[in-house]
Amino acid sequence: MKVLIVHAHPEAKSFTTALCDLAVETLGGQGHEVRVSDLYAMDWNPVASAADFGEREDPDYLVYALEQRRGIKAGTIAADIHAELDKLLWADLVIFNFPIYWFSVPAMLKGWFDRVLVSGVCYGGKRFYDQGGLAGKRAMLSLTLGGREHMFGEEAIHGPLEEMLRPILRGTLAYVGFEVLPPFIAWHVPYISQEARQDFLRQYQQRLECLDEAMPLSFPRMEQFDERLYPLPHDR
Amino acid sequence: MKVLIVHAHPEAKSFTTALCDLAVETLGGQGHEVRVSDLYAMDWNPVASAADFGEREDPDYLVYALEQRRGIKAGTIAADIHAELDKLLWADLVIFNFPIYWFSVPAMLKGWFDRVLVSGVCYGGKRFYDQGGLAGKRAMLSLTLGGREHMFGEEAIHGPLEEMLRPILRGTLAYVGFEVLPPFIAWHVPYISQEARQDFLRQYQQRLECLDEAMPLSFPRMEQFDERLYPLPHDR
Repeated sequence: MKVLIVHAHPEAKSFTTALCDLAVETLGGQGHEVRVSDLYAMDWNPVASAADFGEREDPDYLVYALEQRRGIKAGTIAADIHAELDKLLWADLVIFNFPIYWFSVPAMLKGWFDRVLVSGVCYGGKRFYDQGGLAGKRAMLSLTLGGREHMFGEEAIHGPLEEMLRPILRGTLAYVGFEVLPPFIAWHVPYISQEARQDFLRQYQQRLECLDEAMPLSFPRMEQFDERLYPLPHDR
Repeated sequence: MKVLIVHAHPEAKSFTTALCDLAVETLGGQGHEVRVSDLYAMDWNPVASAADFGEREDPDYLVYALEQRRGIKAGTIAADIHAELDKLLWADLVIFNFPIYWFSVPAMLKGWFDRVLVSGVCYGGKRFYDQGGLAGKRAMLSLTLGGREHMFGEEAIHGPLEEMLRPILRGTLAYVGFEVLPPFIAWHVPYISQEARQDFLRQYQQRLECLDEAMPLSFPRMEQFDERLYPLPHDR
């Protein structure tokens, strides 16, 4: 299996980084090929802008997704985007490894989504969800957060974490065709003991060793919708 | 009323920019004071990093939120963050004006949340939701997207847009204490006629002229939870 880990944490010695290192070691030890995009170490540029394109379809008015389509076809998209896209297309499994900032990914990683999930390759036209351009690949979030587990859930103060992660799990990863595995979550990380951190590392290692047993999350399938994307009648 | 518009679009001539300009004109015309943070024009840095702090609480290990707390107290937080925080604290109403990228804000704006919503000022300890540091202020999203309206809703292919926006509406804006007004949404923008765009501009103007009539969205209140943030019993 070919594995890409997209890692985004501003502290090289962080526990989130330890999760990344553990994944490299565990999956590598199983004989998988592993590559890491360490966005902070790479000084990744997260800002989608006109500078991402060479010759433009429309030099006077930027519609980012439309220029992505042309830029990829014409081979004029920015080199840093192209390099990441190549890694993405190479991978069978992509792990996004990050600390939760505002119930979402840090801007650094959001800008990887914005720039690398290129229209015309990863999605476009009716190619999304199970028909997405990355269908056949799997993705997983591996994340750390400050909150405690009891703060998330149906009756809990922040509601279910999966609902907070919906624009990522469903709106981004499932949208481009990934089979999305349940996220690995390490709770309350800045405030817990070394022992508790070791426990999370052990849990993560077990998850990584049994990825094939993980049941993917459920998302819409295109066959449930008509040509104009209105829902088709269905049995409840 | 003092209004801050945080605007993030890579095309200065975009329809999203037209929405921003309309808000400046309409709210200014009503006698309100309006300031705009045009993040692309400012070349805003969206990346939370160690460089955001002068002297550090812990120079060897960065916990971003903890350094924010110290940096604000000590007056050593980066000048660009301080300038935005001052505008935020000045404002009675904050409008976030942006195109949807991946069912969320562009990285440029995500990085404004990450860096400007400083721990110790905007939230911290038990100060969140109705007890958040920005309680008493109002916020509204004004957004454009490529999707059509019928692609969003309970049975629709992407589900309700408000659920996709949950980490922003609830997890970010309500979390820091804002009273959150319903978002203004312009659908299918890259593909519609000039007339349809004019319609959206008229609708937006009406929304801006009647902001006091808008019913804020509902979110958790701290009195519903105990000291450890477990939910208190309640009548259903």
